[in-house]
Amino acid sequence: MSKNFRIVALIGKYQSPDVAEAVLRIAEFLRVRGLDVWIEQGTASSIGMAGQFAVASYDEIGAQADLAVVLGGDGTMLNTARRLSQHGVPLVGINQGRLGFLTDISRDEALPKLAEILDGRYTEESRAMLDAEVLRAGHRVFQTLALNDVVVNKGELGRMIEFDLSIDGEFVYTQRSDGMILTTPTGSTAYALSANGPILHPNVGGIALVPLCPHALTARPVTLPDTSHIEIVLLPQHDARIHFDGQARFDARAGDRLRVTRSPDVVRLLHPEGYSYFAMLREKLHWSAPPRRP
Amino acid sequence: MSKNFRIVALIGKYQSPDVAEAVLRIAEFLRVRGLDVWIEQGTASSIGMAGQFAVASYDEIGAQADLAVVLGGDGTMLNTARRLSQHGVPLVGINQGRLGFLTDISRDEALPKLAEILDGRYTEESRAMLDAEVLRAGHRVFQTLALNDVVVNKGELGRMIEFDLSIDGEFVYTQRSDGMILTTPTGSTAYALSANGPILHPNVGGIALVPLCPHALTARPVTLPDTSHIEIVLLPQHDARIHFDGQARFDARAGDRLRVTRSPDVVRLLHPEGYSYFAMLREKLHWSAPPRRP
Amino acid sequence: MSKNFRIVALIGKYQSPDVAEAVLRIAEFLRVRGLDVWIEQGTASSIGMAGQFAVASYDEIGAQADLAVVLGGDGTMLNTARRLSQHGVPLVGINQGRLGFLTDISRDEALPKLAEILDGRYTEESRAMLDAEVLRAGHRVFQTLALNDVVVNKGELGRMIEFDLSIDGEFVYTQRSDGMILTTPTGSTAYALSANGPILHPNVGGIALVPLCPHALTARPVTLPDTSHIEIVLLPQHDARIHFDGQARFDARAGDRLRVTRSPDVVRLLHPEGYSYFAMLREKLHWSAPPRRP
Amino acid sequence: MSKNFRIVALIGKYQSPDVAEAVLRIAEFLRVRGLDVWIEQGTASSIGMAGQFAVASYDEIGAQADLAVVLGGDGTMLNTARRLSQHGVPLVGINQGRLGFLTDISRDEALPKLAEILDGRYTEESRAMLDAEVLRAGHRVFQTLALNDVVVNKGELGRMIEFDLSIDGEFVYTQRSDGMILTTPTGSTAYALSANGPILHPNVGGIALVPLCPHALTARPVTLPDTSHIEIVLLPQHDARIHFDGQARFDARAGDRLRVTRSPDVVRLLHPEGYSYFAMLREKLHWSAPPRRP
Repeated sequence: MSKNFRIVALIGKYQSPDVAEAVLRIAEFLRVRGLDVWIEQGTASSIGMAGQFAVASYDEIGAQADLAVVLGGDGTMLNTARRLSQHGVPLVGINQGRLGFLTDISRDEALPKLAEILDGRYTEESRAMLDAEVLRAGHRVFQTLALNDVVVNKGELGRMIEFDLSIDGEFVYTQRSDGMILTTPTGSTAYALSANGPILHPNVGGIALVPLCPHALTARPVTLPDTSHIEIVLLPQHDARIHFDGQARFDARAGDRLRVTRSPDVVRLLHPEGYSYFAMLREKLHWSAPPRRP
Repeated sequence: MSKNFRIVALIGKYQSPDVAEAVLRIAEFLRVRGLDVWIEQGTASSIGMAGQFAVASYDEIGAQADLAVVLGGDGTMLNTARRLSQHGVPLVGINQGRLGFLTDISRDEALPKLAEILDGRYTEESRAMLDAEVLRAGHRVFQTLALNDVVVNKGELGRMIEFDLSIDGEFVYTQRSDGMILTTPTGSTAYALSANGPILHPNVGGIALVPLCPHALTARPVTLPDTSHIEIVLLPQHDARIHFDGQARFDARAGDRLRVTRSPDVVRLLHPEGYSYFAMLREKLHWSAPPRRP
Repeated sequence: MSKNFRIVALIGKYQSPDVAEAVLRIAEFLRVRGLDVWIEQGTASSIGMAGQFAVASYDEIGAQADLAVVLGGDGTMLNTARRLSQHGVPLVGINQGRLGFLTDISRDEALPKLAEILDGRYTEESRAMLDAEVLRAGHRVFQTLALNDVVVNKGELGRMIEFDLSIDGEFVYTQRSDGMILTTPTGSTAYALSANGPILHPNVGGIALVPLCPHALTARPVTLPDTSHIEIVLLPQHDARIHFDGQARFDARAGDRLRVTRSPDVVRLLHPEGYSYFAMLREKLHWSAPPRRP
Repeated sequence: MSKNFRIVALIGKYQSPDVAEAVLRIAEFLRVRGLDVWIEQGTASSIGMAGQFAVASYDEIGAQADLAVVLGGDGTMLNTARRLSQHGVPLVGINQGRLGFLTDISRDEALPKLAEILDGRYTEESRAMLDAEVLRAGHRVFQTLALNDVVVNKGELGRMIEFDLSIDGEFVYTQRSDGMILTTPTGSTAYALSANGPILHPNVGGIALVPLCPHALTARPVTLPDTSHIEIVLLPQHDARIHFDGQARFDARAGDRLRVTRSPDVVRLLHPEGYSYFAMLREKLHWSAPPRRP
């Protein structure tokens, strides 16, 4: 039995019966090792589990579990991170398809890698999150966390938007564009990278602002210290959709204020020994692709 | 008389007699305020100064001056910063032409702004520097500091180069390109910006790696924590020129190792009250340029 | 009286009473020169015109007018071009605000410049248009022209889309992205430029494909010969909004086929003597902006 | 025996004995088919050929050969194209390593693919070339052709250069940058692509101007009609190196005028049946690389 981990929670991909076999196999593996195994209740319901293991809510998991094993893709990890981050439960990601940036253990290696981690042979990494809120007429009308990014995008009308950007209370510029991505280092290899945003190593204490199709040719991505208070105010006659990790969404209207800061909580990721951020980048971004120029 | 500043050094643009009038005017202004005024010896010689003020070397200035006033452009500031940084002398930049990123006081406002600063009404800012060395066959053959950037470029042959990049001792990738820029936040708005590098706010603890015309389409700029040890090794049959702040240069050959870390020293910049990094960006990068799209 | 121009139509910005004064001033000016002046009927209605001039539909203008004078911005010109292009009526653009790419005569200079053009002192330029249609289950469900661009964008769901691209019947690639811009040379300085698309001189016989936030890091804009037949098919479970010159819109669903070719018709633009495409680029894109690097 | 091809020349990679075996194997294969086989004299000398086949200069090949088979990489093809283009000899490229953009037949398939081509089963493609000359004090001091690109680069000093660009005699802009690439469609997938240049399909009649690290943030690549006369004049105190297909080089000084137009000659490339430009792009640019975003 592992010393540091007593209660281990299993969280599967949202509404996905496909992970049933993997969840049960890992649950059984953990039980045999003498651990208390809890299945997240949505997962339990999706896979049609019939009472072999304890079922628990995200809140219960957050309050009591020593480890959460996430089965799915990076999207499942993003969702779990946002729900559990305030509790500081460490997370392990097991990918059901191709390896992800966050779910770096393959399904085939799940058991031996988990055994390693339970034995204390792991690397722990902290990932920053964003805390975002929207104010309307001075009142908070929305609040959530994001591990990847907050994306202000064109709204229902599908037209270019215009907004003011302030940092730490100081006006920076008015921008006309298709929108703006505010990304953590974790999100810098996700959507922001498609928009020519800079890659930020997870240990850089920064938040990058990446404009989407900016009207002005001189607009450039800017990386701010993660102590910054960032505020975006939609100008009159503009509406926007704000996406959080591509999972939550808020429809904003003219005058709404989006405020984003770094969350005081972090996501704790456990990786098997030998994990390398750069190896992962090399693999995922095809940096090993063969030469091209004649 | 100012309490905190007793000895003030004046440093003019390298080999530039044009700054003579400004240097003498400021020197006189400082003397009248009861300060000891030292003129950097190269400056004194360039402007043909004849004994009205004390003359001092960079080392003497570094050891004893309480403030150095730099007259020139950003290039003069870069040079001064590299020479004085280990001593921690604060710097004030007075531009002789258009305002620079680092020399943010105009010639016309020099006296009132200096008066403000001497009265203690200023903002102090720390800027990180890079410490770079080149090893050949295990021996250090070159070493210098850079406030903006270290640029590994094609060498004499003018052909694409190939090198290995390691970070903290771990191999990251082999790159074929025209070169690589390693930039501080300060340098992120200089050469690196022309190569599509990310803007880094001066308070971000990062070093950005910006490839120059990389052969692989998947290459992207990466920002590393400024605690990183970065090493670039030229592969066989490749030569490179390494530029430091565009001022010092080293001709490297195959097998040479360039090692770059953040310097323990910082550059202390004093700005008049009301200085704003974002206002400076907006002005210098023409972020206020009028709209374009029909 | 001008030899080549007998009937001149005036077309004002859509639903904009502000152009009333300018329309009437120009109409009067033309009448005094002995020309038949027709006011486009929507324009006549917007400006509340009361019978001083003949009123005509776009079709009547297309069939009989020798020249159409467009008062508004580039948007007004785009709209007029699409409506009149099949008739080959030459267009002159008079901007009511800042000069546009297409409306290159300022309001202040309208009368003397028009006089020049009516006297035969002008440069004529042809601009290519795109002919776009959408097929659903083999039937054409939408068709229109575009002078700037056809933009396939994320649909109602706001999620990345996936589509197959074929050119001249040959499969080229499957792309996951926020969308794709298909642009004429005229449109290459509009929205496509914000998405890092290439500028195409109006005399280049090309259509550029510019991906919007493509998932693959190796995606790049491609310019095709304007003889190409371009087809985009939305993959299952993807919906898209297709915008034409930012003015017309079609909501596409999975399986819909967008087909784009160059239209056999061209837009004829008349410019006063001395017009220069490059001077216009220099002005509009701020290529004369002062230097930046230290 | 093939009707259309009587004399076939073989041209191997410059100073490369490695191609000896392939050259001789193909020469023998052609002889058996009843063709006159000529070996380019530099090739004959490199591979130490001893009299089995006729040896001919590039000029003789150009004047009389009906086909030239090029063995090497894209660099060998570029060199051959420049030497033979004025004669209109069609070229076939057989790659000795990885397939190139221009040398699209693999060594293993050389004999059957050549047989196909000799039997008349091929696709012919025309590629545009650039004709470049340098004028100094009104006199032509250099002239050459380029199939890929003409690259104006920083000179010996390694410092940013400044130059005026004119098109068809009209001043366009003054640029400060590391240089400028002028590329054909063929070159648009070579060096220019590394500098974020646009891909041009070979049938687009355009020449793209791609700035290298331009000082101004508003600089963008521009594609001109291939009828353009392009002129670049180095401003005082600037020197540059001009590279032609990365093979020829000219050291230019302040005041030198580089003039570039499309050459009246084209390169004729023969491809085996089934050749597809888009399939080649997909393969070489890794457009089939698997998805990345979570």
